[in-house]
Amino acid sequence: MRLLRYGDPGAEKPGMLDANDRIRDLSGVIDDITGAMLDDKSLARLRDLDPSTLPLVDGTPRIGPCVGNIGKFLCIGLNYTDHAAETGMEIPEYPILFLKANSAIIGPNDTVSLPRGSRRSDWEVELGVVIGKPAKYVTEDEALDYVAGYCITNDVSERRFQGRLSGQWTKGKSCDTFGPVGPWLVTRDEIPDPQSLNLSLAVNGQTMQDGTTSNMIFTVAQIIAHLSGLMTLHPGDLIATGTPAGVGMGMKPEPIYLKSGDRMELRIDKLGQQNQSVVEDD
Amino acid sequence: MRLLRYGDPGAEKPGMLDANDRIRDLSGVIDDITGAMLDDKSLARLRDLDPSTLPLVDGTPRIGPCVGNIGKFLCIGLNYTDHAAETGMEIPEYPILFLKANSAIIGPNDTVSLPRGSRRSDWEVELGVVIGKPAKYVTEDEALDYVAGYCITNDVSERRFQGRLSGQWTKGKSCDTFGPVGPWLVTRDEIPDPQSLNLSLAVNGQTMQDGTTSNMIFTVAQIIAHLSGLMTLHPGDLIATGTPAGVGMGMKPEPIYLKSGDRMELRIDKLGQQNQSVVEDD
Repeated sequence: MRLLRYGDPGAEKPGMLDANDRIRDLSGVIDDITGAMLDDKSLARLRDLDPSTLPLVDGTPRIGPCVGNIGKFLCIGLNYTDHAAETGMEIPEYPILFLKANSAIIGPNDTVSLPRGSRRSDWEVELGVVIGKPAKYVTEDEALDYVAGYCITNDVSERRFQGRLSGQWTKGKSCDTFGPVGPWLVTRDEIPDPQSLNLSLAVNGQTMQDGTTSNMIFTVAQIIAHLSGLMTLHPGDLIATGTPAGVGMGMKPEPIYLKSGDRMELRIDKLGQQNQSVVEDD
Repeated sequence: MRLLRYGDPGAEKPGMLDANDRIRDLSGVIDDITGAMLDDKSLARLRDLDPSTLPLVDGTPRIGPCVGNIGKFLCIGLNYTDHAAETGMEIPEYPILFLKANSAIIGPNDTVSLPRGSRRSDWEVELGVVIGKPAKYVTEDEALDYVAGYCITNDVSERRFQGRLSGQWTKGKSCDTFGPVGPWLVTRDEIPDPQSLNLSLAVNGQTMQDGTTSNMIFTVAQIIAHLSGLMTLHPGDLIATGTPAGVGMGMKPEPIYLKSGDRMELRIDKLGQQNQSVVEDD
């Protein structure tokens, strides 16, 4: 099942894709796609619907973040062997966690706006994991039962803000528009193995990242188990699970950073694609 | 004006204190105290009410976090000269930012529960600043106009999770119950100078922290200006502005950490007090 939210920012309606990739309106069935309807029972009710009986949505509306009212946006750093190598940083002993401000979240094809003073803004395609039921002190074996589904996220990052403004990465991660999420929430029954997905990102048509989730240092299950030992993961929480090699700061002989007019295209197997253009704040 | 939220967790009602410190019910006037009603106009409408005409709330209900649906919980680290000295860390060049997970937020007198594996949980009394209208690229001169009001926060911190679990402080800051907020949101007209407030914290009756906001390295106005250059501060966002000397990890000859049965009491001039007891997760 591929769930999505469409319409103007802040006024998105819930929808699902039918077998022909057309958007069907779910607003007669549920109010929105948020944590409150991501438990197994609620998802099973949606799965029982025949999409062809739902109203067809006309045209090509804007697509919003695939989950509304995200509780917390947890991000794992340095979680791919190839990316750790390109940054020259050590393989971490535990998953590195930082939080991205929720106010950074935008739709998958919305415009990314570089803040004033940005000179080193960078891209990071990541597998997003959306929590479906409260998880506290869960084991690795049971961890995936707490997942509602998966989506694409772009963990846009200003490297100077991240590293040179007196510490803690969140400064470079939380700028407005730095969190495209979507297009779809693909429920976990359709992704039996989250550790075998190809993910890629191109800038202006040139492939920069081309990786696989099999290179994760910590698996999705290990990440959920670890985080749930620190805090409760609530329905509607989003975890971005790290990025493979190929970010701008790792480019040789010189880093490459985003500039106005650039276009990013992100893909993950089964999860669709994102397309963002880049502008600069006045 | 002293606004508060009272009742069971997740079902709090809005209220205000009258001249005799009794709670008056605001639920006939507004649905809740959230970012949506913290702009100057909405606060002015509340200020025009005669509290004695509002229903008196019986008994002594639980007090919730003084703002509901907090958007992001921004925290400033190492922001007092005396605290920077006790940690042995350098005075930062810019305000150090980290985010605390919203799921850590509790009422001012709720129980703080130490997570499994916690051996170094610590206290931090902090001046909380609640944003009243959207702030982006604001100057230091105008920054305080964007404040709705002030409150007490306790930035409870697990030092081992914060420093020894592969980096980024947020791990030790985001545990469930690690963010008591309240009891009151005191509107900014009652706090003409946020840099002249005494703040203190006692554990089991013994004063551990006894500081003043005049020792902040970065003022509230400077913090808002700096953060608004990185991201939009939205109504209902909360900024914890750092803690003065006297945290447990700075104690001589040995650090002192929280344990089950401890009681914390926090006070800030004009903002009331918090009282938390400490338990340990099973």
